[in-house]
Amino acid sequence: MSQDILSSLLNDSPAKILLLVLDGLGGLPDPATGRTELETARCPRLDEWAAAGATGLLDPIGPGITPGSGPAHLGLFGYDPIGDIVGRGVLEALGCGLEMAKGDVAARINFATRDAAGLIVDRRAGRISSEEGRRVSELLAKNVEIPGIDVTVRAVKEHRAAVVFRGDGLGGAVRDSDPQSTGVPARAPTPLTDDSAAKRTADAAAAFLAQAREILGGERAANEVLLRGFAAWDPPVPFREKFGLTASAIAMYPMYRGLARLVGMDVLPEMPSIEAEFEALPGALERSDFVYLHVKQTDSAGEDGDFARKVSVIEKVDAMLPAVDAAGPDVVIVTGDHSTPSLMKSHSYHPVPVLMRGGTTYVDATKEFGESASRGGALGRFPSCTLMPQALAAAGRLAKFGA
Amino acid sequence: MSQDILSSLLNDSPAKILLLVLDGLGGLPDPATGRTELETARCPRLDEWAAAGATGLLDPIGPGITPGSGPAHLGLFGYDPIGDIVGRGVLEALGCGLEMAKGDVAARINFATRDAAGLIVDRRAGRISSEEGRRVSELLAKNVEIPGIDVTVRAVKEHRAAVVFRGDGLGGAVRDSDPQSTGVPARAPTPLTDDSAAKRTADAAAAFLAQAREILGGERAANEVLLRGFAAWDPPVPFREKFGLTASAIAMYPMYRGLARLVGMDVLPEMPSIEAEFEALPGALERSDFVYLHVKQTDSAGEDGDFARKVSVIEKVDAMLPAVDAAGPDVVIVTGDHSTPSLMKSHSYHPVPVLMRGGTTYVDATKEFGESASRGGALGRFPSCTLMPQALAAAGRLAKFGA
Repeated sequence: MSQDILSSLLNDSPAKILLLVLDGLGGLPDPATGRTELETARCPRLDEWAAAGATGLLDPIGPGITPGSGPAHLGLFGYDPIGDIVGRGVLEALGCGLEMAKGDVAARINFATRDAAGLIVDRRAGRISSEEGRRVSELLAKNVEIPGIDVTVRAVKEHRAAVVFRGDGLGGAVRDSDPQSTGVPARAPTPLTDDSAAKRTADAAAAFLAQAREILGGERAANEVLLRGFAAWDPPVPFREKFGLTASAIAMYPMYRGLARLVGMDVLPEMPSIEAEFEALPGALERSDFVYLHVKQTDSAGEDGDFARKVSVIEKVDAMLPAVDAAGPDVVIVTGDHSTPSLMKSHSYHPVPVLMRGGTTYVDATKEFGESASRGGALGRFPSCTLMPQALAAAGRLAKFGA
Repeated sequence: MSQDILSSLLNDSPAKILLLVLDGLGGLPDPATGRTELETARCPRLDEWAAAGATGLLDPIGPGITPGSGPAHLGLFGYDPIGDIVGRGVLEALGCGLEMAKGDVAARINFATRDAAGLIVDRRAGRISSEEGRRVSELLAKNVEIPGIDVTVRAVKEHRAAVVFRGDGLGGAVRDSDPQSTGVPARAPTPLTDDSAAKRTADAAAAFLAQAREILGGERAANEVLLRGFAAWDPPVPFREKFGLTASAIAMYPMYRGLARLVGMDVLPEMPSIEAEFEALPGALERSDFVYLHVKQTDSAGEDGDFARKVSVIEKVDAMLPAVDAAGPDVVIVTGDHSTPSLMKSHSYHPVPVLMRGGTTYVDATKEFGESASRGGALGRFPSCTLMPQALAAAGRLAKFGA
């Protein structure tokens, strides 16, 4: 469906939509029980919502493709997760609150430790504290000077930071300087294409790295900077324009706030806990047509291979859902951005269970929320980037196409 | 699948195909019973066909998109429902039997009533009789004269008629003169784009409206003409060429006969009843490779929010199906162009149950025809514009692609 046609169908219904993303929700069955994390969890409210609405399975990118969080979220937000793909550097920069303008190039920074011979001995500088990370980031921000190019550096967490290069004719096609292993020197940030924009950015990055080594020469741990994920910023059509919805984002982690900011959502301040996220929900729903609430801990448990912990995070979220019912969004969606089966300790390509409730959603016979039950649900299996049009339709926000 | 590839696979199998469209067939479950209109209807023959063939769900346009009848039918007929979209004016003109050539522009007419101050007081001229409608349409047809442009007017029904403008360099991008409300004057039919074709057509429409006010000045009710749905006619690849099938259409309502004529089907005369439509079927199947039979009343009942009447229309159709078995088409498809849930009193975006029987159709385990059962059927869920290739394949009319 082209943006032109979709735009022509948007109306001004007041119905509100909540998108609750349990990161990495999808799982694989425990061989002992035949049940996934979601199917093992006691979640009476999710089951009640499934009974009151429809379930299905979504493919974040395409069959067989394991998504990163960036493209996976863009799909959920209704964007083409391949065509609208955004580099990791941009996500990191937006996630830590750096402003970006069209044409800026961002990269992720790892502070690292190099020895006297110039070899990398620790790619994370001994995981310096966030306070230390802020201190060395500020050293760089204050002291780096590249003629014709504005350089901004901001700390993210521990050894991680982000840098934004602003200037005429920059491009994102630059090779990582991070060698991805120790005992070797950092690589040069060489251009990946022939165009002058890549060359110009590679030169700026090389100058940045050379100056950083000078500036950090006296540091014990963080005496080197590794750059990766160079990406130019070409902002997508804002969410509000695309779907006619004012939107708020509630998330604990910078990356997800960055993804929301990237599509133009209002992003609430960093939340300290899942409880705080749900406490912020009623106000956000008051202010916006659409709220995105992100729970990270399901994914973290899956990545750690901790089946039981993933189960308990799902149960914890379920216990908070009366707050959602009280806030009363018209249409509620619960899903994940991708699967993170505890059995794999990683993201996976398996389709993700999704539940929709409210508005004109089909009330199917599904009585519980889980991978197996979702296979027979009325939503069927669909590409995640069509979730938004379906939610708009359920909310009565899309007019008829053609007479 | 490109038209070139499809054409190269067509063979001259004699197998015949029936497409039975129950308009707005798809529904939503009655909360009291959990069953939709189709699931509530006692339709032993449809259930028998479902048991003897395969079921599935089709998406007329795309997830979340509620289709009008025009694009929805084009999809069923195997055309791209977005790329091949046709304006309502063209459908109305074709529907009432006006011939159109490439480049002609058509618009829908509402006869209306204006007061002495020029304000619209009734947008339907008191719903004048069809006889009155014919009389005033003929007044216009005889008396309007626009230099360099042929104007044809034909009555449709009651206060509705169609007009076709033929001349060099016309285009369809013209604003409706229908203000969509009363107590205001008609709007000017201004061009919607900068090109000369829109300007030329807008001028012709303005001249038509000015002359119509003169010609109808003495009428008590139909003293004004409102134009809407301007559309230029750019005929699609004919159905016969596209699918190698001679085709007949049986329908009660002008719009659906217009849609069939649009793709080049032979259109049988207006039918007075569902019974008459099924009586015409054997002859049509005798003469053609493909027959499209349209039942409108399911949609009308859904639009009226009359769940019970929609159920009874489905049961009435079911009772006529022995006539289909007697006529013996090789492949039979039963579906809707879109969903019209009685609970919504409108078209909706929900996928539509579809049943195919005969030829090499997979015989799945489905034993009844309904939304829930169709979800597990062998046809799966698919875009409506791929129905025709599947029907051709079941009928043995498509050769292997590649060696």
